[in-house]
Amino acid sequence: MKKNNKYDQDLDQNEANHVPLSPLSYIRRTAEAFPNHTALIHGDINYTWYETYTRSRRLASALAARGVMKGDTVAVMAPNVPALFEAHFGVPQCGAVLNALNIRLDAATIAFILAHGEAKVLITDREFSTVIRDALDKLEHKPLVVDIDDALAQSGELLGEITYEQLLNEGDPESPWILPDSEWDAISLNYTSGTTGNPKGVVYHHRGAYMNAIGNILAWAMPKLPVYLWTLPMFHCNGWCFPWSVTAMGGTHVCLRGVDPKAVFDAIQKHDVTHLCGAPIVMNLLLNSPEAADFNLSRRINMMTAGAPPPAAVLEGMDKLGFDVTHAYGLTEVYGPVTLCDWHPEWNEQALAEQAILKARQGVKYQVQEEFFVADPKTLEPVVADGKTMGELMFRGNVVMKGYLKNPKATKAAFSGGLFHTGDLGVKHPDGYIEIRDRSKDIIISGGENISSIEVESALYRHSAVMEAAVVARSHEKWGETPCAFITLKPGASVTEDELKAFCRENMAHFKCPTTFIFTDLPKTSTGKIQKYILRTRAEELEVQVE
Amino acid sequence: MKKNNKYDQDLDQNEANHVPLSPLSYIRRTAEAFPNHTALIHGDINYTWYETYTRSRRLASALAARGVMKGDTVAVMAPNVPALFEAHFGVPQCGAVLNALNIRLDAATIAFILAHGEAKVLITDREFSTVIRDALDKLEHKPLVVDIDDALAQSGELLGEITYEQLLNEGDPESPWILPDSEWDAISLNYTSGTTGNPKGVVYHHRGAYMNAIGNILAWAMPKLPVYLWTLPMFHCNGWCFPWSVTAMGGTHVCLRGVDPKAVFDAIQKHDVTHLCGAPIVMNLLLNSPEAADFNLSRRINMMTAGAPPPAAVLEGMDKLGFDVTHAYGLTEVYGPVTLCDWHPEWNEQALAEQAILKARQGVKYQVQEEFFVADPKTLEPVVADGKTMGELMFRGNVVMKGYLKNPKATKAAFSGGLFHTGDLGVKHPDGYIEIRDRSKDIIISGGENISSIEVESALYRHSAVMEAAVVARSHEKWGETPCAFITLKPGASVTEDELKAFCRENMAHFKCPTTFIFTDLPKTSTGKIQKYILRTRAEELEVQVE
Repeated sequence: MKKNNKYDQDLDQNEANHVPLSPLSYIRRTAEAFPNHTALIHGDINYTWYETYTRSRRLASALAARGVMKGDTVAVMAPNVPALFEAHFGVPQCGAVLNALNIRLDAATIAFILAHGEAKVLITDREFSTVIRDALDKLEHKPLVVDIDDALAQSGELLGEITYEQLLNEGDPESPWILPDSEWDAISLNYTSGTTGNPKGVVYHHRGAYMNAIGNILAWAMPKLPVYLWTLPMFHCNGWCFPWSVTAMGGTHVCLRGVDPKAVFDAIQKHDVTHLCGAPIVMNLLLNSPEAADFNLSRRINMMTAGAPPPAAVLEGMDKLGFDVTHAYGLTEVYGPVTLCDWHPEWNEQALAEQAILKARQGVKYQVQEEFFVADPKTLEPVVADGKTMGELMFRGNVVMKGYLKNPKATKAAFSGGLFHTGDLGVKHPDGYIEIRDRSKDIIISGGENISSIEVESALYRHSAVMEAAVVARSHEKWGETPCAFITLKPGASVTEDELKAFCRENMAHFKCPTTFIFTDLPKTSTGKIQKYILRTRAEELEVQVE
Repeated sequence: MKKNNKYDQDLDQNEANHVPLSPLSYIRRTAEAFPNHTALIHGDINYTWYETYTRSRRLASALAARGVMKGDTVAVMAPNVPALFEAHFGVPQCGAVLNALNIRLDAATIAFILAHGEAKVLITDREFSTVIRDALDKLEHKPLVVDIDDALAQSGELLGEITYEQLLNEGDPESPWILPDSEWDAISLNYTSGTTGNPKGVVYHHRGAYMNAIGNILAWAMPKLPVYLWTLPMFHCNGWCFPWSVTAMGGTHVCLRGVDPKAVFDAIQKHDVTHLCGAPIVMNLLLNSPEAADFNLSRRINMMTAGAPPPAAVLEGMDKLGFDVTHAYGLTEVYGPVTLCDWHPEWNEQALAEQAILKARQGVKYQVQEEFFVADPKTLEPVVADGKTMGELMFRGNVVMKGYLKNPKATKAAFSGGLFHTGDLGVKHPDGYIEIRDRSKDIIISGGENISSIEVESALYRHSAVMEAAVVARSHEKWGETPCAFITLKPGASVTEDELKAFCRENMAHFKCPTTFIFTDLPKTSTGKIQKYILRTRAEELEVQVE
């Protein structure tokens, strides 16, 4: 250690003044301060913070007794149930790393992940016994399988040698649990959904998880003791770090096995929910459900959305339904959302449509992230903030992954030049707010002009008959490429191709208007993202356009 | 670095995923996201965040150009004016350490601090020219003296070779400023007011300042864009870290040169103040001012208090006046407040008097502190949480000083056993909340029973005629010691010794009742704390009581 000035003399770190940052500290603090406050609700289950902390300690102790050690992986295959929540604390409390699996994956991919992550234990919900059995069959080294026998699971059977509750009973809640030796130690492993090739294992560290838990609180200016509804999958970037955020604020977690609009609306009213998260598709689902008409709350609810820019019509609809929507942006590699369209009070004076345009921007970094900017992908120099010059969105800071597990090549590429490269393209507006225009591979180049597929989609979403829209490139003899739109209509709605064409021409530059319209259901990834590569293939299979 | 498992292989820290934590990052973020929002108000001055950030960068650049380097000290002698606020960013932005001086100190102490801290630059407000001139006369190595020529200063003259505004003009706002090399680097130096002996220089690090800035936000669940009134001296533990907290939330700092009740009430109404801080004495001052009767606001204001448990009558009065009071606790060594009486909603159902008793407790640690408990000072084992067993309050965590500057002996003693020893004595209640009973040296031992001077004072404060009360030990032939009360009455109020005696006997155990009452003004330290050691001397000079 350098000792080059008086402020470094005899002023070293010691046990009293330096402790590794870890979100595990949050649950201890909340259990001490609010032991009798409700921590978790799931169906008829209602646990206090004392109980939840005790259960997480039992889990840590039982795993340790079964030989799970620092650096081991514990995988969980479950929807938003108490076991998965408790694993966010109990697994790292014994030094292990939590690998929450995407429940929509197929057996082959699950098997790949379990093998690649070297899972020593797999805690799995009954509902997924078929896919898990197939996955286990493919594995050379099988993990200890622990069954979550949730009373609310509709199907499936028990596969393992012990149930989750039996495992908890093996644990001693008074046994001391451990903070990590270093805040750089891994806390979780999250595989990207990767549209091609094998998924990559993104490793989170305790420091980053601690910081982005706070980042969420500051971004939302969360109140004390919030009531958070789990509409966002907890397996998705560790529920965007909200298991840790809500716990830090002493809040209540309301579990949901799935996003059924009726269940969502009921839970909001029954449990006085104050906050929830979800991709724009979830808002779409709520808005277009028959229950929406009957939903009438005297207070406002906070919803954070990310994953795609929320279309104006959706924002307006949610506003009328009583939701204050915050638009955030991030990726698995940055612990979920870590930028937001931080709202300026004076924007409330603008027309709703104008507000929606402002809100669709990805905005500015969280307080806890160090840098977020748009750069020339070659020189890494920031682009001009003119709202026009495109570049790649880059991050730097403490809410960035350790890297990809056992993949130094991909890690090195992602961090090239000392920045995390998102692969998303966008612009910086003169007011400093950043807006995504596209993924690099989604841009459409027509007659030498770049067309943002997102911009075209946003325009289509404004049409009252359109439920979902995805735009990709189709080959064109003269222009090289032109936009090809895949459209799902709202239930009961109808529109012709000509009507949509006319609508587009009214709402955007002519060269950006789709030349092809295909009415169809849209293929989606397991995390609900539209699979553009499938649509791209479908567009490529069409004959080359001539006119 | 250990490489003992797969999660440590090829997953090192790099420029993209690890940046030193520093509150300097907050001002850059706020200047980027809210450049045109008001950052600072002082009289007719109104700076935006763009301007404030620019001014802090000018300061950093000008200091660097004048040879100020990493590890140098820059002292500031000023009330709550823009220059002192800007110094919280500009000084560390050039790598230097901010030493904000207590403006109530005498020349000899100031001279000691400037010499001990090796201040290279002294930025000083005109109003304090007399004491500063005397202090400078005593110094062998004189710092560069920079005058703050504040239009609102009522007196004094310019002493230095340059004014603060001239210094800023020397700086280049585009010149790059620096984050610390390490988050363990010093950011500020705060001398304790030490009732005896020379003051000790408490060194804060960037990591701790960053963390407690967040700690304040979470403790208060601060909203976005708060308006913060500077009733708390910024020289006091760096304004309890609020220069950094409010900046992180994009808020507005409203400066005040002094705590005049009329100015406070006016500022609250004029600038829509949402938050302010101050010792209980400040609340007392507001409540007992003639302006309180006319103060009528349709909204609630948040006030954080620390430094002494707020008396019940004061809490009730403030509640009626429209203030939601949060009671916090800390010391210079832990960056100001770092525990709070975190409120349970169900406590609102109790009677106001009962609520005041609950609120007078120091409570639980901030989210960002690791440990806060009451321990046997010898064994360091936690005491039983029975609300009775006394012990010493201990801290451990990331919001604890680096140590005392050039004082390894005192540093070692403060951190003995891997804990920070507060010197405060208290109990832990069965619900986990901690309550101070006394400083070790303030306890009164009567007939072998410990009497908490704070408990006796709290009872006295409940009497309607009492403005301030301080209780110390007086020697007694039979009992060893008995409580001796020093009382200041409210303006216009009157009460006899017998009436107070009867009041005490109704409100506490007889052995705790003061046997002596002295009606007088109370001596105070420069930070407004009652100087019990002076009262103790006065009590010792009384003859030994016999009955």
